[in-house]
Amino acid sequence: MGFVKSLNPHFAAKVQSIFEKAAFIQDLGLRLGTVSAGEVETLLAVLSRHLQQDGVVHAGVQATMADHTAGMAAASLVAPPETVLSVEFKLNLLRPAVGEALRCVATVLRQGRTLIIAESEVFAREGGRERLASKATVTLAVVEEERLRRREGGDA
Amino acid sequence: MGFVKSLNPHFAAKVQSIFEKAAFIQDLGLRLGTVSAGEVETLLAVLSRHLQQDGVVHAGVQATMADHTAGMAAASLVAPPETVLSVEFKLNLLRPAVGEALRCVATVLRQGRTLIIAESEVFAREGGRERLASKATVTLAVVEEERLRRREGGDA
Amino acid sequence: MGFVKSLNPHFAAKVQSIFEKAAFIQDLGLRLGTVSAGEVETLLAVLSRHLQQDGVVHAGVQATMADHTAGMAAASLVAPPETVLSVEFKLNLLRPAVGEALRCVATVLRQGRTLIIAESEVFAREGGRERLASKATVTLAVVEEERLRRREGGDA
Amino acid sequence: MGFVKSLNPHFAAKVQSIFEKAAFIQDLGLRLGTVSAGEVETLLAVLSRHLQQDGVVHAGVQATMADHTAGMAAASLVAPPETVLSVEFKLNLLRPAVGEALRCVATVLRQGRTLIIAESEVFAREGGRERLASKATVTLAVVEEERLRRREGGDA
Repeated sequence: MGFVKSLNPHFAAKVQSIFEKAAFIQDLGLRLGTVSAGEVETLLAVLSRHLQQDGVVHAGVQATMADHTAGMAAASLVAPPETVLSVEFKLNLLRPAVGEALRCVATVLRQGRTLIIAESEVFAREGGRERLASKATVTLAVVEEERLRRREGGDA
Repeated sequence: MGFVKSLNPHFAAKVQSIFEKAAFIQDLGLRLGTVSAGEVETLLAVLSRHLQQDGVVHAGVQATMADHTAGMAAASLVAPPETVLSVEFKLNLLRPAVGEALRCVATVLRQGRTLIIAESEVFAREGGRERLASKATVTLAVVEEERLRRREGGDA
Repeated sequence: MGFVKSLNPHFAAKVQSIFEKAAFIQDLGLRLGTVSAGEVETLLAVLSRHLQQDGVVHAGVQATMADHTAGMAAASLVAPPETVLSVEFKLNLLRPAVGEALRCVATVLRQGRTLIIAESEVFAREGGRERLASKATVTLAVVEEERLRRREGGDA
Repeated sequence: MGFVKSLNPHFAAKVQSIFEKAAFIQDLGLRLGTVSAGEVETLLAVLSRHLQQDGVVHAGVQATMADHTAGMAAASLVAPPETVLSVEFKLNLLRPAVGEALRCVATVLRQGRTLIIAESEVFAREGGRERLASKATVTLAVVEEERLRRREGGDA
């Protein structure tokens, strides 16, 4: 943190594009919050379809937010012809995600030429109070968009 | 593997119940496949709403499958008054998840009194061929259902 | 962070004991730094025997520091008859750990009755400058010391 | 598994070299077992200096074995001018590692041009019986040895 630098003067447009084109993210109902170089925020109004059997937001919803928000934070740093792909992530479920809304903040921990590591924190807001519900570490590979389009990205 | 033993003679009914009551799982379109003690299979017909910006099934969909299927595999082992909660999981995205269907197989690696560790493999089927797309390790806590209902589960 | 509370008025003595009795930690040459409730620091003067083939401190040395320091941070919170056992951890290697000394700071993220989640940051000092070399998330189980002594701890 | 292919006809010599030149691995007392393309075995005679406070082999020793053995399995696949660096790993401690010896088997799950994913299983042998003590997933970056020597590897 503090050592990241965007290689794309139009990074906000790139983040917006990755947000809009991801069908599952739109289907889930995620909204894009503040965007800066290496840090992105997303928001989700919790609906009953997001829950698991015990009334808590499903871990899969939190994982999706954590992963995609980290991806956008990483993508904000890379050069225009490049994008990022998740390599792996780990999510720790710290407290039950209950409430009316979730908020995720992803921050890049390390910016490399071929790998970017980011952290995502997912907060649950219940009443006026926000609590850290889960936290993820996400490893992302920097890939050329052109190669991804030809579907060679999987060989990264 | 091989050392697990279900403490619930009606484990298939418990798995079915955890499957049906999870709103996000129903919303996603997951189907329940074969169920045995400590091993559960789920299936997903891939729809365009499951995809991310590059035509691959979103990592969040794979994470949801991996987590929930592991949860059902773990829940198949615990005593009737108990259930399980995900504590953390890690997902490695090994190959692009492209194709018409996903299949997830979760297997319990270790059955403890208070913690269960499971692995999930997510396969993508394209044409007649199935390939391992991602693999997860999931840590689950064994909790009393009654306590969970009173929403104290988060203190596990 | 900020929500942790030690259940042991003599937590510093417990941390000291876990530090001294761990043979591998003594063998490695770890030193105990500052200790507070839920946060512990350790230090290591880097020797040539700590390195891997390319002159960087071996990931295993960093993992040992991250895991053990997190364990002491967690142990500082539990009641006198209890101790903690690592359930799992994930380490991200962010930058090459080069230099004359390592410093690890572990902080408890979540204090539950049966599970504690901590984070460890490992910094490498080279010249006068310290850089974050690696970061870990550690899940720990709270267990009764008496049960551990009878070697039943493995069933946690 | 099944899909890996070594790009180095002299891979056994490369593995041997990575094994011998890693000071911490020699200091720990690790021995190299069988080596094939994408799969490597290591062995450790457990000494009292490997233990933690409760008589179990320290998680850091298991992590070191898991990481280094995975690194050698990955290195067995890359072309002669390349080597590998650990990016991250996750270790699940499944059962107490007690006994007279540990054995680790690492297998490559996915071979990419720039990233290799491997799994390591650490078995503890007590009496005549071997049990799975821990299991790790390891992500490794493929890097040019020449660049590593100039210490630029950290920008991978």
